[in-house]
Amino acid sequence: MADARFFDRQGPFTLRDILTCAGIEGLLDADLDRQFDEVGSLDTAEPGSVGFLDNPKHLSALKDTRAGACFIDAAHVNDCPVDTIPIITTTPYLSFSKTAVLFYPAEARMDVEAGGSNVHPTATIGKRVTLGFGTTIGAYAEIGDGTIVAENVHIGRGVVIGKNCIVHHSATVTHALIEDHVDIGTGVRIGQRGFGFTPNLPGYLAVPQLGRVLIGNDVNIGANTAIDRGAGPDTRIGNYCQIDNLVHIAHNVVLGQGCVLAAQVGIAGSTRVGDYVVMAGQVGVAGHLNIVDGVTLAGKTGVTHDVTKPGTYGGFPAVPVRDWRVKVATLNRLAKKRDRSDG
Amino acid sequence: MADARFFDRQGPFTLRDILTCAGIEGLLDADLDRQFDEVGSLDTAEPGSVGFLDNPKHLSALKDTRAGACFIDAAHVNDCPVDTIPIITTTPYLSFSKTAVLFYPAEARMDVEAGGSNVHPTATIGKRVTLGFGTTIGAYAEIGDGTIVAENVHIGRGVVIGKNCIVHHSATVTHALIEDHVDIGTGVRIGQRGFGFTPNLPGYLAVPQLGRVLIGNDVNIGANTAIDRGAGPDTRIGNYCQIDNLVHIAHNVVLGQGCVLAAQVGIAGSTRVGDYVVMAGQVGVAGHLNIVDGVTLAGKTGVTHDVTKPGTYGGFPAVPVRDWRVKVATLNRLAKKRDRSDG
Amino acid sequence: MADARFFDRQGPFTLRDILTCAGIEGLLDADLDRQFDEVGSLDTAEPGSVGFLDNPKHLSALKDTRAGACFIDAAHVNDCPVDTIPIITTTPYLSFSKTAVLFYPAEARMDVEAGGSNVHPTATIGKRVTLGFGTTIGAYAEIGDGTIVAENVHIGRGVVIGKNCIVHHSATVTHALIEDHVDIGTGVRIGQRGFGFTPNLPGYLAVPQLGRVLIGNDVNIGANTAIDRGAGPDTRIGNYCQIDNLVHIAHNVVLGQGCVLAAQVGIAGSTRVGDYVVMAGQVGVAGHLNIVDGVTLAGKTGVTHDVTKPGTYGGFPAVPVRDWRVKVATLNRLAKKRDRSDG
Repeated sequence: MADARFFDRQGPFTLRDILTCAGIEGLLDADLDRQFDEVGSLDTAEPGSVGFLDNPKHLSALKDTRAGACFIDAAHVNDCPVDTIPIITTTPYLSFSKTAVLFYPAEARMDVEAGGSNVHPTATIGKRVTLGFGTTIGAYAEIGDGTIVAENVHIGRGVVIGKNCIVHHSATVTHALIEDHVDIGTGVRIGQRGFGFTPNLPGYLAVPQLGRVLIGNDVNIGANTAIDRGAGPDTRIGNYCQIDNLVHIAHNVVLGQGCVLAAQVGIAGSTRVGDYVVMAGQVGVAGHLNIVDGVTLAGKTGVTHDVTKPGTYGGFPAVPVRDWRVKVATLNRLAKKRDRSDG
Repeated sequence: MADARFFDRQGPFTLRDILTCAGIEGLLDADLDRQFDEVGSLDTAEPGSVGFLDNPKHLSALKDTRAGACFIDAAHVNDCPVDTIPIITTTPYLSFSKTAVLFYPAEARMDVEAGGSNVHPTATIGKRVTLGFGTTIGAYAEIGDGTIVAENVHIGRGVVIGKNCIVHHSATVTHALIEDHVDIGTGVRIGQRGFGFTPNLPGYLAVPQLGRVLIGNDVNIGANTAIDRGAGPDTRIGNYCQIDNLVHIAHNVVLGQGCVLAAQVGIAGSTRVGDYVVMAGQVGVAGHLNIVDGVTLAGKTGVTHDVTKPGTYGGFPAVPVRDWRVKVATLNRLAKKRDRSDG
Repeated sequence: MADARFFDRQGPFTLRDILTCAGIEGLLDADLDRQFDEVGSLDTAEPGSVGFLDNPKHLSALKDTRAGACFIDAAHVNDCPVDTIPIITTTPYLSFSKTAVLFYPAEARMDVEAGGSNVHPTATIGKRVTLGFGTTIGAYAEIGDGTIVAENVHIGRGVVIGKNCIVHHSATVTHALIEDHVDIGTGVRIGQRGFGFTPNLPGYLAVPQLGRVLIGNDVNIGANTAIDRGAGPDTRIGNYCQIDNLVHIAHNVVLGQGCVLAAQVGIAGSTRVGDYVVMAGQVGVAGHLNIVDGVTLAGKTGVTHDVTKPGTYGGFPAVPVRDWRVKVATLNRLAKKRDRSDG
C-alpha cells in the first residue's frame, strides 16, 4: 500500500511474528504460520494485509473488508468476515501500530545524504552516527550513538544529544541538553535567546539569556517549532512529550511528562505545565502560570489564570468546557431573541 | 520605480504590446506605438508609466495622476486626466498585473547561487534546472524541466517535482509528488510525518505515517508553512491553491481547487475542504470535518463542525457571519446595560 | 551560574566597574574595589554575585539572599541583608541587565563555524565579518563591518545589511535594506513575495511584488518569523522593534519605532502601526488598518477596525480592555443564571 518510492517494507511475517510483536499471547484458532506482507486500513486491505477496528463507527468497513486478519476488541468478533482472522486485543490501534512498525521500521528513520559536513575537532561523535551534507557540529558538542543529524543542520557549541535521536533537515540546536530517542523536526529552532529585554529609552536592552533547554527522552517535536532557552532558569521539556508543528515555547517554560501540544500552540514565558496535559491547536497560555497534571485545553483556548484542577477547559478566558458550552448557548439564545425582535 | 538592485525591468514596450499582453482588443483612440517603460500606482506614476484604477475610493488619485495610461472600468473613463490614456477593461487589476509581469517577468523567478549541491546519482534532473549551493537531491528524486531549487534545500528520496517550479531557500520536500508551476516558499516543510501516535504508557507509540503529500499545478506556498504527509491516505492540495506564511496543514487533509489560506491558518487532520474555500488569517479548523465548496471563513474563525452550505462564516464556534455580528452586538448591548447599572 | 559549555563569562569586575557599567554615580558607603565574579537571581546568588530586586513580591528572596550586592530601589534598602551591598537605582532590572552584559558580552554574539561559504564576487564584505559554513551571499550584496552571518544562511542579491548585525542559522534575507545592530533569528524569512494575487479563472495571477523590506536600527527578530516584502510600497520595521518567534508581517505593513510583537502575532497587509505599540501573543490585526502610537493589545486580540486612541484593548472584535472584561463578566452572569434555571 505504502508508496515504495518513500517507504521500505520489511516482511513477509507470519501471524506468529505479528502476535509476538504486538505482545498478544492468548490462544488463537488460526494458522500461526500464515504469512502477511502488509498492513492497511480495512477498506483497502488485501488478503495478505493486517488491519484493525478501533472505532465502532467503522463496523461497516469491517463487514466488507478483504483483510486477512484484523486486530479487534472481543465485543466485535462476531462482525468479522469469515475470511478475516480476528486478533482479539483491548488495544486494537496500539497493536496495529506496533505491527506497522514491524513492517515499516525505517519509516521513523530517514534517508540522509551524508558527506560534506563540518565537524569541530573538539566535538564527540558516537558510533553509527550519520551526519548530513552541509551540517555543522560545534565545539565540544556531543552526539550519541546511533543518532542521525540530517542536512543543513546546526548543532551549537557544547550541545549534548543522546542516543538514537534524529535531527531533521535545517533544524537548529544550541544551548541544549537532549536525552535519548528524541525526534527534532525539520526547521525546528531550539535554544535561541528568549524574548527578554527591558526598556532603555528610546529602545530596549536585550537581557542576557543565560539558561538552557533541557529535553527528556522519547520526545517528538514537529516542523518549524521554536523552543527558547531559559533566561537564567532552564526551559524544560519532560519525557514522552509530543509537540506538533509551529508551536512556540518561551523561555523558562516547564512541560511535565507526556504532554501533547497540537499545532500552533503558544506558551508564554515561565509558565509551568504538569504531566499529561493536552493542548489542542492554536491554544495560547499566558506567562507565569501554573497548569496542573491532567488538564486538557480545547482548540483555541486562551488561558490567562492558573488552572488548578484536572479536567477539560475551553474558551477565552478559559473556563471548564461545560461552562463554555453554556456561555455559547446562552449568547446564541439571546442573539436569536434580539434578532427576531429586530426583524 | 522598483529598486533595480532587486528587480530587473524589461521594456520599454509599446501600448500595442501592453494591450496584447493584457488581452484587450477593442479599438482605442490612441497612439499604439507610444512607448512605456514602467508600471506603478497612480500617485507615484510618471508619464512613461501604466497605472490602474480598481477601487472607486482611489478616484482622487486618478484625477491627480501623471500616469501615461491607466487600466480603468468604462464607468470612470470621464475621470481620467486629459494626458492619461484610459484603457478600458472590466478587470483593471488583472490587466495591470499581467502588464506588471510583462515588465518584471523575473520577479517571480529568483537569483540562485548555484554550485556545491549534492545530487544522488540515481536522481533525474530535467533540462534548464538550477540547483543551489548546499542543496541535496535524494535517491530516485525527479526534478522537472525549468525548475529552480535554491540554496540549502533538501529534496528527499523518491520525490517528484514537475516543470517550472521553484523551491526557495531552506525548504524541505520529502514523501511528495508535486505537479507543475508550483512555488514552494523559504523554509516550507512538506512531507514530514503527521502528528499520529497512540498511548503506550508511560509514553506514546509513533504510528507509522505511510501516506504522501500530493500537490497540484499552479500552487503557491508561503514561508515557513508546514504540510504533513498522510497517515495512510495522502494529504492533497488541489490545483491553484494559494497558501500564505506559517500555515499548518495536518495529515490526510484534502484541499480542493483554488483555495486561499491566509497566514497562520491551521487545519487539523483528515479534514476535507472543497473548492474555492477562503480562510482568512489565524483561522483554525478541527479535524475530521467537511467544508463544502465556496465557503469563506473570516479571520480567527474556529470551525468545530461540518460547514454544509456555501457562505461566509465567523466567530468561535463558527456561525454564519451575520449571526456572529448579531451575537457581538447583543453582548455589547447587554454589557453596556450592566455597566450603566453598576456605575 | 550559567553553564560554561554555552556561555563565556568575563571578569571578575570591581564594584567600581559595575557602577560605571550601570551608569550609577551616587556615593556609596562600600568598598569600591571589592570584586564580583557573577550575576544571578537573589535565590541562587553566592557572595561573589550581583543580584537585583525589581518586583516587591520577591522581597522574601531578598531577605534570604547571599548575594554580595543587589540593585534595588531606595524604598527597599532597609530590607537588604547586612552582608548584601544595596546599589540604589530607580531602574534595578536595567542596571542588572547592563551588568549581566558586562559579564556575558558574548551571550549576544554566537559561535559560528566559518569556512565553506559561497560569496558572489560582486558582493561587498565589511571588516571583521564572519560568514558561516554553507552560507551564500548574492550579487552586489553588502555586509557591514562586524556583522556575523551564521551557517546555511542566504543573503539575496542587492541586500544591504549594516554594521554589527547577526543573521542566525538558516535565515533568509532577500529584497531588504537593514540598518545596524539588527539581530535576525534562526529560520527568519525576510523579503519573500507578499501574498498578492488576483483571480484569473480557473486560478489566480500572482501580482508582481515590487517593494522591499526596510528595517531600522536595533531591531530583534525571533525564530521562524516571516516578513514579506512590499507589493510596490515597502514593508517597514522601525528602529528598536522587538519581534518574537513565529510572527507574520504581511506586505506593505509599517511598524513604527519601538514596537513589541510577541510570539505568533499576525499583521495583515498594508496595516500601519504607530510607535511603541505592544501586541501580546497570538494577536491578529486585519489589513489596511491604522493603529495609533501607544496602543497595547492583550493576548489573542483580534483587531478589525482602526484603533484611534492609545490604551489597552482586548477581545475579538477588539474593544477597550475594560469593556472586554465587562462583556466577559456579563456573559458569565447570564450563563450562570441560565444554567441554574436549566438545572
